[in-house]
Amino acid sequence: MSNPVRLGFTGLGSRGGSLLESCLSMSDVEIAAICNRSDERREQILARVADAGRPSPSTFTDHGTMLSAANLDGVVISTPWTDHVPMAIEALEAGVYVGLEVGAASSVEECWELVHTAERTGTHCMFLENTCYFRDCLAIRNMIRAGLFGELVHCRCGYGHDLRSSLHRTDASGESLAWRGRQNRHRNADLYPTHGVGPMAKVLDVNRGNRFVSLTATATKSAGLAAYAEENLDPDHPAAGIDWAIGDVITTVLRCANGETLTVTHDVSLPRPYSNMFHVQGTGGIWKRTFESLSGGEVKTESAIYLEEESPGHEWEDFAPYQTGHEHSVWEAYLEAGVKNGHGGIDYLTLRDYVRHVKRDARPPIDVYDAAAWMAVTPLTEDSIALGGEPVSVPDFTNGAWMTTEPPVGEPAHEMTADLDL
Amino acid sequence: MSNPVRLGFTGLGSRGGSLLESCLSMSDVEIAAICNRSDERREQILARVADAGRPSPSTFTDHGTMLSAANLDGVVISTPWTDHVPMAIEALEAGVYVGLEVGAASSVEECWELVHTAERTGTHCMFLENTCYFRDCLAIRNMIRAGLFGELVHCRCGYGHDLRSSLHRTDASGESLAWRGRQNRHRNADLYPTHGVGPMAKVLDVNRGNRFVSLTATATKSAGLAAYAEENLDPDHPAAGIDWAIGDVITTVLRCANGETLTVTHDVSLPRPYSNMFHVQGTGGIWKRTFESLSGGEVKTESAIYLEEESPGHEWEDFAPYQTGHEHSVWEAYLEAGVKNGHGGIDYLTLRDYVRHVKRDARPPIDVYDAAAWMAVTPLTEDSIALGGEPVSVPDFTNGAWMTTEPPVGEPAHEMTADLDL
Repeated sequence: MSNPVRLGFTGLGSRGGSLLESCLSMSDVEIAAICNRSDERREQILARVADAGRPSPSTFTDHGTMLSAANLDGVVISTPWTDHVPMAIEALEAGVYVGLEVGAASSVEECWELVHTAERTGTHCMFLENTCYFRDCLAIRNMIRAGLFGELVHCRCGYGHDLRSSLHRTDASGESLAWRGRQNRHRNADLYPTHGVGPMAKVLDVNRGNRFVSLTATATKSAGLAAYAEENLDPDHPAAGIDWAIGDVITTVLRCANGETLTVTHDVSLPRPYSNMFHVQGTGGIWKRTFESLSGGEVKTESAIYLEEESPGHEWEDFAPYQTGHEHSVWEAYLEAGVKNGHGGIDYLTLRDYVRHVKRDARPPIDVYDAAAWMAVTPLTEDSIALGGEPVSVPDFTNGAWMTTEPPVGEPAHEMTADLDL
Repeated sequence: MSNPVRLGFTGLGSRGGSLLESCLSMSDVEIAAICNRSDERREQILARVADAGRPSPSTFTDHGTMLSAANLDGVVISTPWTDHVPMAIEALEAGVYVGLEVGAASSVEECWELVHTAERTGTHCMFLENTCYFRDCLAIRNMIRAGLFGELVHCRCGYGHDLRSSLHRTDASGESLAWRGRQNRHRNADLYPTHGVGPMAKVLDVNRGNRFVSLTATATKSAGLAAYAEENLDPDHPAAGIDWAIGDVITTVLRCANGETLTVTHDVSLPRPYSNMFHVQGTGGIWKRTFESLSGGEVKTESAIYLEEESPGHEWEDFAPYQTGHEHSVWEAYLEAGVKNGHGGIDYLTLRDYVRHVKRDARPPIDVYDAAAWMAVTPLTEDSIALGGEPVSVPDFTNGAWMTTEPPVGEPAHEMTADLDL
């Protein structure tokens, strides 16, 4: 592995640009190459790298060319969703450690392809699910390990984010929907499950002693996007009058091999404050996020907890004292050094864990089995909804290895404190 | 109809006693008869009626005998669940206006029997779902009618109540579980859906322009009750070591004819504060209960709201100002006169609405079609869980009348203010 590690970046829209930005301050990372089809966007990124006083990366307009020419240790992929898995597979074939931005799978089959390619090539792929690094979620996992929740029984999560404006954006032609709107136009599914599912799958030890077995999904009617367009768009706007496929609220219930359930909500086309709807419940107590807000890089959360052994009466308590009492070591160090921008600091932690594993060519904390199980929720909910709510089975992408893989192997932030590069 | 109306009470456990208590202060009600098999319990009730300075009721040990002998205008039934429908049917056949305490149906068929009997006899039955009279739920319905939520899309509700201690109680023999524990011992279903479903069905105009079409239900493992027994019961206690059928958390998703979904949670065997988990969401905004507590006769609730047209930024607001701004007229009067005991005042309002309709022999605000659709959630979730989460259809107990029955016909608290008898 090079020192510093040589990273490439494919797809440099607003998300890709912000991931690159998070890496600019890392002393052990070289922004070695960038890939984007837009001359203007590449120039913007080069200017930003120069401003940061870092060496200028090579520039490419094609992912495959970059992979073969740029001698990369790792590549961060943050393209439109349909390109995620094909580009990740291309990188794995080229022996480049993938950092894959989250998104929806197009099919269960492509999740299998990702898994098979990683297994065949022996190259690693980390799924960059930043929500796994939320301060409260990591403290909750400490508390679970300490036995405070007893035996886990039920979790909830979701993605509640008013995307009505951005889903109506048009593509570069100005004549049809951009890629994310197109997904919502044509697919009735939980299109963005992993921000919720990721941290709860980690809580439930999915793929490490447990697994998702089946799910049912139910969609409401689609009313929010049309109501928004009616109110806000000119009748001749290319996104006006669309017959949206996506239901406003998609409710999914996943069953786990160890008997727990996980309820997942997708809710992006109604007016509402941001929420990941986290909820963890066991024989010893219950925790839930109560208020959340996300604006710019700022994340504010409040949560409530009731632990049978600790809480007075039958009343909810503020989670804040538990947060500090059970702080994850990585957040202790991070808070002391100063939390970076990017979704309340989690973007930096995620990429830091990625870089740390690239440097050692080590199995990532969120691997292809996790990526496959979490991303597959999209096509599987699509199937269940199409079948009127029928339960559908979730493949075991580990082919049985979940039974012998123990937590905390591959756990986000595990032993990470020493390598924060803050 | 007599004046005062002559009411009988069948089943006088703690719940029945408390319902009778709520009627003692009503000037237009005579406690005409009581029915209970226990000599001791009848004596207690007679003493309580005497203490209140009211005439002494006739006493019975058999429901049918009371119905034929006591010349009743109405009868309040609050027996164990399996007796609810059979006793209601007996009363309908006798021409006595039924007030039916809530509970689980044993089968879909008995829900049909209740409907058919009411239709054939022309006698009314009101389902005494007190939660329909919650102050916030009635204000929310005012706000929905005022258009503040736009088109409704999704609701949630549930029954989160730590019943671990009471479910382990033994029956009079001291050797086996009492009736409610027995239900949980033998049935894996949402055994207590109506406290949540009732108010949300009213919000969604179910049976009045809308109806429940189908549902899926998923149960977690059963861990909470066994863990409780292990910790709290002697090994030779008759309720120790039971293999409970009920999953700790049952998640149900109901689909409505008009495209909305309603998620219902049953959660009675884990440590947790009380909650009905109300949540209402439309194209105009979202409301949810955030904190609830129930202790003794006291109910405290807090909720959060975000209305696109009203709320600043993308932030939750405290519901309190909206509560006062959209107060239901019956609660305005009730608050001014002084709220009575009994689940924060809702018991009195429910019984008051019952008495008001008995006096006029009028169709009740919560009728047999509502009772059937809400109670049927129990056997239907039982079916879906037994089938591994398969969607099951919800019968149309109105046989098509839901399409022509307009809200607010039969709406709780409709035009009730003038007859509060406070």
